[in-house]
Amino acid sequence: MAQKPSIPKGTRDFSPVEMVKRNYIFDTIKEVFQLYGFMPIETPSMENLSTLMGKYGEEGDKLLFKVLNSGDFISKVRDEQLQERNSVKLTTKISEKGLRYDLTVPFARYVVQHRNDISFPFKRYQIQPVWRADRPQKGRYREFYQCDVDVIGSNSLLNEVELIQIVDEVYRRLQLNVVVKLNNRKILAGIAEIIGEAEKIIDITVAIDKLDKIGLENVNKELAEKGVSAQAIETLQPIILLSGTNAEKAAKLKELLADSEVGMKGIEELETVFNYLDSLNVETEVELDLTLARGLNYYTGAIFEVKSKDMEFGSITGGGRYDDLTGIFGLKDVSGVGISFGADRIYDVLEQMNKFPEETAATTKVLFINFGEKEELFCLPILSKLRANGINAEIYPASQKMKKQMTYANNKNIPYVIMVGETEMEEGVVSLKNMESGDQEKLTPEQLIEKLA
Amino acid sequence: MAQKPSIPKGTRDFSPVEMVKRNYIFDTIKEVFQLYGFMPIETPSMENLSTLMGKYGEEGDKLLFKVLNSGDFISKVRDEQLQERNSVKLTTKISEKGLRYDLTVPFARYVVQHRNDISFPFKRYQIQPVWRADRPQKGRYREFYQCDVDVIGSNSLLNEVELIQIVDEVYRRLQLNVVVKLNNRKILAGIAEIIGEAEKIIDITVAIDKLDKIGLENVNKELAEKGVSAQAIETLQPIILLSGTNAEKAAKLKELLADSEVGMKGIEELETVFNYLDSLNVETEVELDLTLARGLNYYTGAIFEVKSKDMEFGSITGGGRYDDLTGIFGLKDVSGVGISFGADRIYDVLEQMNKFPEETAATTKVLFINFGEKEELFCLPILSKLRANGINAEIYPASQKMKKQMTYANNKNIPYVIMVGETEMEEGVVSLKNMESGDQEKLTPEQLIEKLA
Repeated sequence: MAQKPSIPKGTRDFSPVEMVKRNYIFDTIKEVFQLYGFMPIETPSMENLSTLMGKYGEEGDKLLFKVLNSGDFISKVRDEQLQERNSVKLTTKISEKGLRYDLTVPFARYVVQHRNDISFPFKRYQIQPVWRADRPQKGRYREFYQCDVDVIGSNSLLNEVELIQIVDEVYRRLQLNVVVKLNNRKILAGIAEIIGEAEKIIDITVAIDKLDKIGLENVNKELAEKGVSAQAIETLQPIILLSGTNAEKAAKLKELLADSEVGMKGIEELETVFNYLDSLNVETEVELDLTLARGLNYYTGAIFEVKSKDMEFGSITGGGRYDDLTGIFGLKDVSGVGISFGADRIYDVLEQMNKFPEETAATTKVLFINFGEKEELFCLPILSKLRANGINAEIYPASQKMKKQMTYANNKNIPYVIMVGETEMEEGVVSLKNMESGDQEKLTPEQLIEKLA
Repeated sequence: MAQKPSIPKGTRDFSPVEMVKRNYIFDTIKEVFQLYGFMPIETPSMENLSTLMGKYGEEGDKLLFKVLNSGDFISKVRDEQLQERNSVKLTTKISEKGLRYDLTVPFARYVVQHRNDISFPFKRYQIQPVWRADRPQKGRYREFYQCDVDVIGSNSLLNEVELIQIVDEVYRRLQLNVVVKLNNRKILAGIAEIIGEAEKIIDITVAIDKLDKIGLENVNKELAEKGVSAQAIETLQPIILLSGTNAEKAAKLKELLADSEVGMKGIEELETVFNYLDSLNVETEVELDLTLARGLNYYTGAIFEVKSKDMEFGSITGGGRYDDLTGIFGLKDVSGVGISFGADRIYDVLEQMNKFPEETAATTKVLFINFGEKEELFCLPILSKLRANGINAEIYPASQKMKKQMTYANNKNIPYVIMVGETEMEEGVVSLKNMESGDQEKLTPEQLIEKLA
């Protein structure tokens, strides 16, 4: 009967220590989101497969976790369909629901479905797990949380600015040094236009995106392989290698893209954002980075990426503006802009930089050692008083060996223990021991509350 | 291309208003849990089917949502198996994972899997969604949250007492009047023993559990149908109809169960719990209720149920002690006790009793009306100051029609708006309008912060 218990590969249990750390990240992010007027929503874990399929490319369709229909699902499959033995086709007959793959598509679905109840611009955040049947590997899980924040129904660039302010505030609170990379899809479109390869914009942005990883020579090689003409690649060089301050880069781009309307529009948008940031004294470094293209194809304006300055690491936050997210669900011309915080990566950075706070409000502050019935009777009312004063406190539930109770306090990182014996009961006090320093003092219940509150 | 968007039946979207209310419940519960030294854990949404199957009875197995294996799942099924067209058997070939059905079995699995890292007694809480392929109906969903709190690895009755204290504290904070029904499985076992039908304890408890719903006559009829002898049913009558105060009931039970060791043990346990509660001045009414048996068969000691006194409603919290939860996963003789708060039901009661707080920390306190570029430039630094002082604030992102901006504030339940025109800018003040009273006043930025903080 007894089974050796395990969990599906790529999934995780979160123990109290990990939960407290993860909640520190979520709580910090949520508090900042709310400071900026964003409100939470949640969508179901399961969506209809018709909502999810075709939204993440062919590979994405494969990586969706599909939920088997309930009941006698096989009775609805015809013999020929069974005999064909085609898993992809069969799936459509025996599965109607899938686990959400990201928060973006469910959000688009939500906005369209509830359009009549939503007051636009709609500022929402959403922190929920997503599931992907990816091959599990270090740092890549099959179930992980996403933290998305979006404004939808407003094309004001002030939204871009506020998202950067949010990044600034969140990482200041988390005490992490980051740089915000900023680009604009319209500039990339302008570049493609200027060099006469407008239809190759995707290939060009994907190639430029790899500059950091594979170097200039290989970027040029990839561009050639994609059919970009030698002349166009030649024209691209000063753009790929653009350097200097943001203002210098913008000035240079204005020269190069003078003949591209869309390109000039992109530069104007960028400059507007930079002007706002200057006037608002945003501390975080924001850098115009043309090599920033990101994989997703739906961005139409600003593109963001946030990198940790302390560690060689991928992006820990990213996003951008999209002009037609809800179009697939029948609601056209609704512009939005959003970013997503990568909770797992932020966790790893904080852990490696040792930046998690030592004490948190979530953990127990003090443990009453249990010496037996009489002492318990003395301690319980004091315990109640501590709790009534908002102090997280507990009593070991039985009078077991002292060593066992102290080990419990240690393992749970409880900073104080209270010991009460004959003397204390006679004097109406408790002995409070600081678990780190070993210091011990006698306190009245009132002094105890004052000390621990 | 455009699809009419919808979500799977029995699932729900949570809009900001609902989220804020639900988080009020969760936050209240969590804060109390932590006050009593409980720590959070989370387990994966998907568990191996081998972990879940057979734990919830045959019906439960059917109600599990099963996740289709990734890739070419059909290639692993033999022709004969396909031709058999048996959905239940086929499921075992094409699905290895399922969505969790409750938090109890995953918790048992967690405890066994991490037994070497856990410091017992382990006090954990867990607030996560569960999924059941039940037929959806009013108040019954296919995805819903459970809020479980358990102590495992301690058989001290102080744990039972603390759980009742937690119930007391949670519902006091939520301002709901509740009654805690308390019973003990050992008493039920004693009763079965005394009437000579020890092996029929399940049938007897199930029948007694229905007293409220079907009445004494039908309970007796059901007992007879289950093969309980006429004499035994006769002996049962004073027990089924037991009344009076808790002390009176206990005294009467002591007479009736004098010859049953297990029954007397159950009464002793109950009395111990009542004694603790008396000495701790727990305000919530706690009532010994022998008709309380609950469906689940694994309770071995205390059984709890909490009912709202203001509404005719089912249980809003329930639980009990179990002595062998982890046995199925190979860890024997670990006793635990726990309760589960029904978030959806608590939500419904609070909603119908109109007990949700009007204002919450999560929502925006003030909206800056946007009158254009110049005014924006004046407002943005003040907006930053408000946020730096912890005041949730936003500016409408574009200078659209006043009416549209005011509607936005109304729909979002924002209590204040700020208006800034030529006069205000010259004077270095803002006009603050109370959206409810309509009152308007001019304030310096410092006065504004003081007013809203």
